Amino acid sequence: MSLLTVGTVAFDAIETPFGKTDKIIGGAATYIALAASYFNKPINMVSVVGDDFPEEGLQNLRNHGANTDGIQIKKGEKTFFWAGKYHNDMNTRDTLVTELNVLADFEPVVLDEYQGCEFLMLGNLTPAVQMSVINQLKSRPRLVVLDTMNFWMDIMMDELKSVLKKVDVLTINDAEARQLSGEYSLVKAAQIILEMGPTFLVIKKGEHGALLFNKDSVFFAPALPLEEVFDPTGAGDSFAGGFIGYLASTRDISFDNMKRAIIFGSAMASFCVEKFGTERLINLTQNEIDDRVQDFIDLVQFDISLVND
Amino acid sequence: MSLLTVGTVAFDAIETPFGKTDKIIGGAATYIALAASYFNKPINMVSVVGDDFPEEGLQNLRNHGANTDGIQIKKGEKTFFWAGKYHNDMNTRDTLVTELNVLADFEPVVLDEYQGCEFLMLGNLTPAVQMSVINQLKSRPRLVVLDTMNFWMDIMMDELKSVLKKVDVLTINDAEARQLSGEYSLVKAAQIILEMGPTFLVIKKGEHGALLFNKDSVFFAPALPLEEVFDPTGAGDSFAGGFIGYLASTRDISFDNMKRAIIFGSAMASFCVEKFGTERLINLTQNEIDDRVQDFIDLVQFDISLVND
Repeated sequence: MSLLTVGTVAFDAIETPFGKTDKIIGGAATYIALAASYFNKPINMVSVVGDDFPEEGLQNLRNHGANTDGIQIKKGEKTFFWAGKYHNDMNTRDTLVTELNVLADFEPVVLDEYQGCEFLMLGNLTPAVQMSVINQLKSRPRLVVLDTMNFWMDIMMDELKSVLKKVDVLTINDAEARQLSGEYSLVKAAQIILEMGPTFLVIKKGEHGALLFNKDSVFFAPALPLEEVFDPTGAGDSFAGGFIGYLASTRDISFDNMKRAIIFGSAMASFCVEKFGTERLINLTQNEIDDRVQDFIDLVQFDISLVND
Repeated sequence: MSLLTVGTVAFDAIETPFGKTDKIIGGAATYIALAASYFNKPINMVSVVGDDFPEEGLQNLRNHGANTDGIQIKKGEKTFFWAGKYHNDMNTRDTLVTELNVLADFEPVVLDEYQGCEFLMLGNLTPAVQMSVINQLKSRPRLVVLDTMNFWMDIMMDELKSVLKKVDVLTINDAEARQLSGEYSLVKAAQIILEMGPTFLVIKKGEHGALLFNKDSVFFAPALPLEEVFDPTGAGDSFAGGFIGYLASTRDISFDNMKRAIIFGSAMASFCVEKFGTERLINLTQNEIDDRVQDFIDLVQFDISLVND
């Protein structure tokens, strides 16, 4: 079904204990679109790049079923660039360079052909850009998912809270859930955050898996124990892409189906970290995805018959 | 079935963000016996206390089906005492006091009536004491489970590795698995540790759950997301007690049954942390345990039908 995503399309330079890259194509919307493309097409994209962005980068997205008409190309300007270095534990990283470039004055435009979208994925960007996309839609999507980060909580908490009132699902990590709620206990944090607007909250815990909350229920999905995490860049966005792509393909936004979406999202994240950048997400097969989901089933499945059942 | 455990019976003084206790009864063998008692009786105990240890403490263990004949009472000596303070995150703690007292020259004695035990739980103690218990048994138990900690890896790694050759299941936390193996990846760490002797490895990750490995398979059990962790003391031992208690009661040491044992162990740990010390483990009902296990089932259960199944 119709799926719209807004987010960055960017250049990344990544250094991990396993090696480093030159500028490669990244950005939240790139990972979201690639991951979602295995479940649902088209993915209508809203983003911005400079004229230094290679046409083959956009073509690659189109090859995966993305509609790139909504990616503005700013003449004489440069694409957003991020460089970072991961520490040995792969859970912490230093940002080495952040050049906003075209992002500095990004005004997202929702094309007419994008109207009527049923599923909206707001990738991590300023709350103002996320709000602008919501406001440009003439009819409210069935499901609005928002990803954000601690940076916006640090400097634009009020704007972020305004957008939260408009979304159905929020995806953040455990530290961000604690920051947003002021509560250390994730169970308490979830209940506070669910009062802020979202009906569902996904708390991503990296190598420790993900939690899905609504007011009454909680679901936990592990991360797959991997021999190596090669490059964590884009894992959260791949998760989001798999999550909303699966939901859009099934058009079922029940809690039970969100559980499945979390597993498919986790599977996409587990592929993402196996190679640098988007490399692993480019050429997946349906069999590989099914096998990976089966790994998740095998990992957590157990069979207990309680006496009093 | 016949279950033998060796470990400390001790006094603890605990400080958490929620309050503090005077000297209360604790110790690995205490938690193991209490948790195991909900699954299997008797629990034959090997330990040592001073004559300052209250008779009602031993009586309480007996009321839960423990055989305390093997707990030596040293006249004129004092019981092992540990005092610790947990930080706000409840995952880290400072040891304030460690008085070895009777533990300093503890020589465990396996009573004749304890011979022929089928399930042996070696609680965290010096590797030499753990080895002594193994060597005193005239017939090898069907299953030997060993718990240990980083302290013994720091100062007695060779002795620890000698004991590891004699055990079937090792339970340690994630940092200890990394220390023991020299590998950061837990998947790689597990394969290295399984070469050291154990057929099964349980890696406890506290609030992030637990992993069970054998050479070919991996199983993950989450920790239950709790509103508050009141006092983590004894959680790992309660896990171990529930784990081996369940295995002893079912006499099934297959990987599939170990998965169930991990869930029951996790349930006992989740009770343990709800109150100070052993308070919550003293008066559990079968219904409470069943309800808690159902919470674990609900937490991780999902239903995905893969197209290619």
